Amino acid sequence: MELIFLGTGAGVPSKERNVSAIALTLLQELNSIWLFDCGESTQQQILHTSIKPGKIKKIFITHLHGDHIFGLPGFLSSRSFQGGDGPLTIYGPAGIKEYIETSLKVSGTHLTYPLTIVEISEGKIMEDEKFIVHAGKLDHGIPSYGFRIVEKNKPGELLVDKLMDIGIMPGPIYQQIKENAVLHTADGQVIHREEFIGTDKKGRIISILGDTRTSHLHNPLVEDSDVLVHEATFNHKKAALAKQYFHSTTTQAATMAKENNVGRLVLTHISSRYQKQDNQLLLNEAREIFPDTELANDFVKIEINTKQKNRERSN
Amino acid sequence: MELIFLGTGAGVPSKERNVSAIALTLLQELNSIWLFDCGESTQQQILHTSIKPGKIKKIFITHLHGDHIFGLPGFLSSRSFQGGDGPLTIYGPAGIKEYIETSLKVSGTHLTYPLTIVEISEGKIMEDEKFIVHAGKLDHGIPSYGFRIVEKNKPGELLVDKLMDIGIMPGPIYQQIKENAVLHTADGQVIHREEFIGTDKKGRIISILGDTRTSHLHNPLVEDSDVLVHEATFNHKKAALAKQYFHSTTTQAATMAKENNVGRLVLTHISSRYQKQDNQLLLNEAREIFPDTELANDFVKIEINTKQKNRERSN
Ligand SMILES: [Zn+2]
Ligand SMILES: [Zn+2]
Repeated sequence: MELIFLGTGAGVPSKERNVSAIALTLLQELNSIWLFDCGESTQQQILHTSIKPGKIKKIFITHLHGDHIFGLPGFLSSRSFQGGDGPLTIYGPAGIKEYIETSLKVSGTHLTYPLTIVEISEGKIMEDEKFIVHAGKLDHGIPSYGFRIVEKNKPGELLVDKLMDIGIMPGPIYQQIKENAVLHTADGQVIHREEFIGTDKKGRIISILGDTRTSHLHNPLVEDSDVLVHEATFNHKKAALAKQYFHSTTTQAATMAKENNVGRLVLTHISSRYQKQDNQLLLNEAREIFPDTELANDFVKIEINTKQKNRERSN
Repeated sequence: MELIFLGTGAGVPSKERNVSAIALTLLQELNSIWLFDCGESTQQQILHTSIKPGKIKKIFITHLHGDHIFGLPGFLSSRSFQGGDGPLTIYGPAGIKEYIETSLKVSGTHLTYPLTIVEISEGKIMEDEKFIVHAGKLDHGIPSYGFRIVEKNKPGELLVDKLMDIGIMPGPIYQQIKENAVLHTADGQVIHREEFIGTDKKGRIISILGDTRTSHLHNPLVEDSDVLVHEATFNHKKAALAKQYFHSTTTQAATMAKENNVGRLVLTHISSRYQKQDNQLLLNEAREIFPDTELANDFVKIEINTKQKNRERSN
């Protein structure tokens, strides 16, 4: 489970940063990849990674500004052209359906796979056996959403020592204990699973926010996330500009992370006014407030660990 | 006046070739650049050239397949974002207006410059003081056009020797002779301009064809062009596939050039099945039929000379 940043710029592409797109790889968990936003040239960026378009099974769109959606028609067509036949679902704000359907119709594109387009509103927008995704509204002039991706807890490990203490040796019966709340053994013992299973393994939480001004109203989306991806279009001094254009600064993003008990913060959606040599400054501004911050560049990968594991790693 | 190939691939982008777009620089002639097709990531390709988006004043779209139009909304937005304020006109097949207007509307994009969209049919689609552009239908399953760009002839040079023979010496009167069909001089001479002006300097002709099967019906678009840009999606052996998918082969493009007295042929729209090491083979197939052939790669520049000048150069 990792984030691969495919485009980390704001508004317009530059030589250093393409426009927005983030892949969340869930290969072990679901044998699939989810995409968050799909700015122009996302399919070209993908050519420089190990991502196979056919593995992308869900696309979440934060908002309809061009730098977040203009890569969709091309990605959908090429996924088809390359023989992708697995279904694909797109979640996005109202209007996304008209945009995609018009683009495909006018260009005479016939997809080889079933495409579902879900126009979202606030609340739980999807749930499967392993994940729940919530959407929450942000503050960006046009409707913009943040996504909170919650991995479900996994049952704890079997307490082998404790089982052996009562004379139950390893074998097929261990699987049966895992699968049944109460089990009667051949020799008449009654095993209550809860007594022989460790505590749940906590699932991870990733929050990916679209373009937005900073606001305490976003706390429920963000709190206790293991990884928060937040836009930082401007540096600290440009707070007035950020407010005017419905964006955030480095320090606003860091404050959001700090106040919400986040594990790790990743800044993205960096204005093209900043060059390579400004990256360290932007990063330092955020780290002064929230030390566990990274600044995303195109093709950067961020592994998703629980806060607990992150903390152990840095000790 | 030169062609800059921004994308030379077919259907889907590859690491080697982006999807279709060609710039025709008319900086000396009109202080502007024209674009032919605008596949996804054209604006990103432009970042790696000296082309300024604000200088692009006309875009001609051959057909509406995604690999030829999906870069339009992003290009239009970024041209605006970067403060472009000069008007832009787009010429393309019916449907282009709906595609552009829906993309701009859904994404909340407000352009800073006047945009005119002209849905074309066969015939003369534009004329200014220096150029005429004709469109002709091709054979591609969906409506696809070829463009014949004709530079108007320029008046010849003043025959200075002949004027001096009759006693008219260099001075402001030379400009008057150029500007008037008949001029009465102060000392009573009558000068008929046509007797003292050399033959017209022939303008150049460039033909740029969209995706198409080969056909003699396209001869009027192509004949006597100084430069012909023709698709060559497939190699010679794949003629059946080319026909099936409404495309052309290397040798079909070369035959078209040979039979139409063309100056120079440039092949583009090369299938991603061909790798770098296949380029020479593709080129050789065409050159056997039409020696003055080039194979376009992304960022290749081709200077536009008259056939006459081309011939002198190669001698
Ligand atoms: Zn944005
Ligand atoms: Zn094409």
